[in-house]
Amino acid sequence: MPAQNALYAQSGGVTATINASACGLIEAARRNRSRIGRVYAARNGILGALHEDLIDTTAESAAAIRALMHTPGGIFGSCRYDLPPLPQGRAHFERLAAVFRAHDIGYFFYNGGNGSAETAQQIATILPRLGQPVVSIAVPKTIDNDIVGSDNSPGFGSVAKYAATSLREAAADLASMANSSTKVFVMEVMGRYTGWIAAACGMALPAGEDGPLLLLVPEVYFERRCFLAAVRARVERHGWCAVAVAEGIRLADGRRLTQAGGDGIPGHEQLGGVAPLIAAMVRGSLGVKVHWGVLDYVQRAARHLASRTDLEQAYAVGRAAFEYALQGRSGVMPVIRRGSDRPYRWHVEPAPLAGIMNREKRLPRRFLNREGFRLTAAARAYFAPLIRGEAWPPFADGLPVHARLKLKPLARRLQPAWQAPPQSKNRR
Amino acid sequence: MPAQNALYAQSGGVTATINASACGLIEAARRNRSRIGRVYAARNGILGALHEDLIDTTAESAAAIRALMHTPGGIFGSCRYDLPPLPQGRAHFERLAAVFRAHDIGYFFYNGGNGSAETAQQIATILPRLGQPVVSIAVPKTIDNDIVGSDNSPGFGSVAKYAATSLREAAADLASMANSSTKVFVMEVMGRYTGWIAAACGMALPAGEDGPLLLLVPEVYFERRCFLAAVRARVERHGWCAVAVAEGIRLADGRRLTQAGGDGIPGHEQLGGVAPLIAAMVRGSLGVKVHWGVLDYVQRAARHLASRTDLEQAYAVGRAAFEYALQGRSGVMPVIRRGSDRPYRWHVEPAPLAGIMNREKRLPRRFLNREGFRLTAAARAYFAPLIRGEAWPPFADGLPVHARLKLKPLARRLQPAWQAPPQSKNRR
Repeated sequence: MPAQNALYAQSGGVTATINASACGLIEAARRNRSRIGRVYAARNGILGALHEDLIDTTAESAAAIRALMHTPGGIFGSCRYDLPPLPQGRAHFERLAAVFRAHDIGYFFYNGGNGSAETAQQIATILPRLGQPVVSIAVPKTIDNDIVGSDNSPGFGSVAKYAATSLREAAADLASMANSSTKVFVMEVMGRYTGWIAAACGMALPAGEDGPLLLLVPEVYFERRCFLAAVRARVERHGWCAVAVAEGIRLADGRRLTQAGGDGIPGHEQLGGVAPLIAAMVRGSLGVKVHWGVLDYVQRAARHLASRTDLEQAYAVGRAAFEYALQGRSGVMPVIRRGSDRPYRWHVEPAPLAGIMNREKRLPRRFLNREGFRLTAAARAYFAPLIRGEAWPPFADGLPVHARLKLKPLARRLQPAWQAPPQSKNRR
Repeated sequence: MPAQNALYAQSGGVTATINASACGLIEAARRNRSRIGRVYAARNGILGALHEDLIDTTAESAAAIRALMHTPGGIFGSCRYDLPPLPQGRAHFERLAAVFRAHDIGYFFYNGGNGSAETAQQIATILPRLGQPVVSIAVPKTIDNDIVGSDNSPGFGSVAKYAATSLREAAADLASMANSSTKVFVMEVMGRYTGWIAAACGMALPAGEDGPLLLLVPEVYFERRCFLAAVRARVERHGWCAVAVAEGIRLADGRRLTQAGGDGIPGHEQLGGVAPLIAAMVRGSLGVKVHWGVLDYVQRAARHLASRTDLEQAYAVGRAAFEYALQGRSGVMPVIRRGSDRPYRWHVEPAPLAGIMNREKRLPRRFLNREGFRLTAAARAYFAPLIRGEAWPPFADGLPVHARLKLKPLARRLQPAWQAPPQSKNRR
């Protein structure tokens, strides 16, 4: 019996290093051609699997696959799409079984976060019941660092390094302007539900320094009076203050600051962006000049400043996923376990998806001081190894070089084309 | 007669490489100790000179001065402050003459943009008439690239490289999300009056590629209908569209889009930020998911991704300024002249401040295609060498290392302290 093929797909918001996981997986597959056949990739995540929109990665050169190590975004396309649960999702799973059967796919790898882990688990448990046995494995990836059971999530270390670097640099700028111009800079980072990235910005300040840097995270309710007093105190003492704020910070009543319209600024809700709200608040209260920035996609795509630790871990989980497949371990995710902080030791091990999916690891309260605005030593010990090491991409003509893949489509074998049944509704 | 001392100061919005000019100047001075005495630095620009708040740079080690090459921001502090013209500014100039006399300062270097060139020129022309001869030289610096008579401005190449890199990376992210999620990303860059940085973002797209990338600059009036049609066409053809927008884009009536409140979104004016306005416009018109980012200080402080060309030029103008001082050339600025595009050849030469100060070099219309949204070959030939080459700073523990200077204050010699006369008013 010839070896069955594998299908790899990317899901959810992408990262600067998700393609390194693809690289780790595909390179491992190329070293084990006798055991697992071809590695296909689904275009745009699980949607490509449903639509039988598949790519044959064997058409790519070794150099092109290697170039994934320095290419941000999701090279095969990602999606925001959840499979409906049974029974209403039955047509979806039957379709997936048909596609897998048509292309002799016996291994499925879904590279995503908490939500994608559920998709991988659904495929692991439901497809065999539909007569299509498959080894289904989730490969972790999220800048949000909120995957339960993993010490950290691939993708996070790089955005943490980039955001902390950006804040350190912007603070140097601000410090030079503060005497006669801007005194406060507010930098908004991603984090709808968790403050991991905003907290990592605290690393911008060297350990032991009492610098004017405040962190705002969703895990600590935003109290306007308290925050403004803290800014005022920093400006009075240091002449300036830098603020890192997670997009999803909340008021005590649970509403997001952006939903609440912040300072009662009309019409702002539709614009999004908490940094301009915080900036307007500080300007109004302290009467000083304030600048603000919103990093948005730029932060999570910033492969030019990836963390070497993160890149190695992203590669390792891709490779480990393939090894688990060889071992027939379905319904698991390779997670990262930390052995020690100093020296930093870590390893990858399989964890059951049932304990991971749709859960969320929040920033521990002990990572922030009592006031809630600064990192503790425990937080520093946690973040330090994750942002360590540089992994500069190649540059040509002054700009980073990204992989150019052929993305050769696989001939379709099924008729008719997939049409989602009308009752199915995407939850995201 | 012992050699007279020199005073160096930084002015206006700082850059990722302004400290490289300080390094070039101070290192040149250290090689010529017999001809010019000590290099002092004024804290916070010309304000430090007025307040006799001076720093003795001779207290810094050679390594600390060298570390300025990789330190963003203005290490001695900058200011936004214009000297009042005569006759009302007479007290200011008399004060400066007294400070220069007290510290035997015969050379003045002002590192800034168009406005700072006027300050340097005022000092060059007025102080000698007050009995305090001084050789006054402006050192160019501005991310805005708007200094007349210089092919480009030190500071610009680095922000151009960073912004174009960020857009290329964010576009890779966007392209992977577009199928089922975000289809448009709007990235706001600096540029109140000129679109140099926004235009440089066009380099994110490789030459000859017809990719979905639109540029919005203040030199081309913003026409909502035309812009939205262009976005729609790109999204229909490519599935997504990235937009780089300068903060200062204007409507045909001359108002800034942010002043006009953009789409009639109430209360937005006070928040600043044109990207959220553009994003709301696209969302409202096309009905697609839109992300937006505002780089603000992060872009101009991003020393971690400086252009090597820019760094070399920033150093060169600092060194040249010192050489002009040795030659007694007052009232000039070392400007950059381009010999050829390919191979890129450039040199530094002195240009009279009278022809530079308070003027502004705008983006030539021929740099954008007829539609106004894309770069021409002429623009690419201009930008290409300016963003070329990397100059990674040293990193420690995952973050860039910045210079730590002693900033040893010079003992004050004058009584009483400076108090600006009540009639003087800062114009900025």
